[in-house]
Amino acid sequence: MKITLNSPLDMHVHLRDGEMLNNVAPYSSKCFAGAIVMPNILPPVTTLEELKAYKNRILKAIGEDKFEPYMTLFFKNNWTYEFLKEAKHFIKAVKLYPSGITTNSENGVSDFKIENLKPTLEAMSDLNIPLLVHGETNGFVMDREKEFGVFYKKIALAFPKLKIIMEHITDRNSVKLLKEIDNLYATITLHHLLLTFDDVAGGKLKPHLFCKPIAKRYEDKEALLELALNAYPKIMFGSDSAPHPQNKKESNECAAGIWTAPIALPALCELFEKYNKLDNLQKFVSDNAQNIYNFKPIEKKVVLEKGEFLVPEKYNNVVPMFAGKKLSWKCN
Amino acid sequence: MKITLNSPLDMHVHLRDGEMLNNVAPYSSKCFAGAIVMPNILPPVTTLEELKAYKNRILKAIGEDKFEPYMTLFFKNNWTYEFLKEAKHFIKAVKLYPSGITTNSENGVSDFKIENLKPTLEAMSDLNIPLLVHGETNGFVMDREKEFGVFYKKIALAFPKLKIIMEHITDRNSVKLLKEIDNLYATITLHHLLLTFDDVAGGKLKPHLFCKPIAKRYEDKEALLELALNAYPKIMFGSDSAPHPQNKKESNECAAGIWTAPIALPALCELFEKYNKLDNLQKFVSDNAQNIYNFKPIEKKVVLEKGEFLVPEKYNNVVPMFAGKKLSWKCN
Repeated sequence: MKITLNSPLDMHVHLRDGEMLNNVAPYSSKCFAGAIVMPNILPPVTTLEELKAYKNRILKAIGEDKFEPYMTLFFKNNWTYEFLKEAKHFIKAVKLYPSGITTNSENGVSDFKIENLKPTLEAMSDLNIPLLVHGETNGFVMDREKEFGVFYKKIALAFPKLKIIMEHITDRNSVKLLKEIDNLYATITLHHLLLTFDDVAGGKLKPHLFCKPIAKRYEDKEALLELALNAYPKIMFGSDSAPHPQNKKESNECAAGIWTAPIALPALCELFEKYNKLDNLQKFVSDNAQNIYNFKPIEKKVVLEKGEFLVPEKYNNVVPMFAGKKLSWKCN
Repeated sequence: MKITLNSPLDMHVHLRDGEMLNNVAPYSSKCFAGAIVMPNILPPVTTLEELKAYKNRILKAIGEDKFEPYMTLFFKNNWTYEFLKEAKHFIKAVKLYPSGITTNSENGVSDFKIENLKPTLEAMSDLNIPLLVHGETNGFVMDREKEFGVFYKKIALAFPKLKIIMEHITDRNSVKLLKEIDNLYATITLHHLLLTFDDVAGGKLKPHLFCKPIAKRYEDKEALLELALNAYPKIMFGSDSAPHPQNKKESNECAAGIWTAPIALPALCELFEKYNKLDNLQKFVSDNAQNIYNFKPIEKKVVLEKGEFLVPEKYNNVVPMFAGKKLSWKCN
């Protein structure tokens, strides 16, 4: 059995930089036609010069693959309309991080007053640039996304024409918001469709399944599955594939992030097949995103075939999700 | 400044076996007059022969220190009155584990029907042998202790003369049960007085702070603190100090357990001093336990002194809580 995906897209990926970029980017570029690239490298991508240079490093890392890196800037609250108008030629979106909430987000937003965000968000709204948000407060770790709901609501209502994408949603409260408020959209990761917090810490503690936002309860996973399997039009696949070297994961201070790039599409096939929803996969991994972002990716056919895929224990120094396990689909 | 504790007791400790026993036991025997020793070694201690042999290995490991290991058996639901009557000469309590809930608990109880537990529990009740319980279901990891509440209640009401000790409580629901039901008692660890789940996974993931039951919410920690700082008569200190080699903690599958033996009393002094409750420490670390278990430990004065204690990064291959940090009290 085979299925052919037309221009699958990863609408949220961390390609990192330097040696890690060279190691991981080819696994995204092999199976996807394009990906929204997160800007939280060090230093975060806040200027067009940095952005162009980073894009060049990415293109070099992926080599010959037919793949478009869709660039994003790290949100600043004082950008002018003119800057963003110029930026729009080079970016697909702007990514907003609350300060200190995940890897390299120290320079993020610490105050969500509308008046503080207004200069940038008003211009983005006028220019139709989507705002991508890592939606977590600095509250108790299991409540952070739920607590952030008030900010999603506040921003969405203050800028009703701004497309706001709730990135990597994990909480059933976000699903409720998505359905309630017109200009809220969302990405969902593979791992949040598969894991609850029990998988991370219910038995032994699994650092390679530790990510932010942390995996939640069974009810939360069910709510996400229901959206994804039915390819709800306001959601898109975004892997949040986030590699760290093995020694940063299996250490006394494990960095947050699950690396799924090489296994994402096979595992999605397995999941959608299990629920007899393979027909919806094309929408989830590409069509919905094209509609939400209003763009056409490059043409690229990606064939997935039923058959054993023994996931390597590591790819150089990075351990993937499902390391050493067998998947029942593989990328051709 | 100095304080002298009379016969401090650790009412829940894992001394392990073999090389690990030899490494860790001296840190319990140095500062405590005695400790309730958990029986979940491999194989679990279920016979008196095993128990006597294990006790001898412990005594050998601690050498010259004045210290009593109070032995426990791993609960079996088919013991006779005669067996337990004989056992009573050698044990202080029996420890019940739900099956598969923590380290080496695979042979624990999987069915909490009163009729199944009755042979052993009735005899224990008649013989006045305390029942120590690891109170977690196999439900969602954050809910396990709360869910176990129905079993605590059921067993406590079915055997009203049996002293039941809810080990290492972490959930405010257990505090409520403790206050409601006469024959329920509890131990509280140091780490659950200091940590919430945010400390374990709110920033980076900290394998050395991962334990079962997992640290919970701020409200839970506050409820435990209120009991401990006021030396509520039905609670006792039990460290649940549970060493694992560093390579089993900083790995792709981190074992549950925090090793606090060498830092427990200094950290308790620091904590009780912070809340201006040092006067209650003697009760929390010894007197309450003597009343609940109705016994007299050996006489041993342990002096703690105000002064910098730089906690070693490791003790051989085991990383303690507060590794590399400074405490403001030390054991003399």
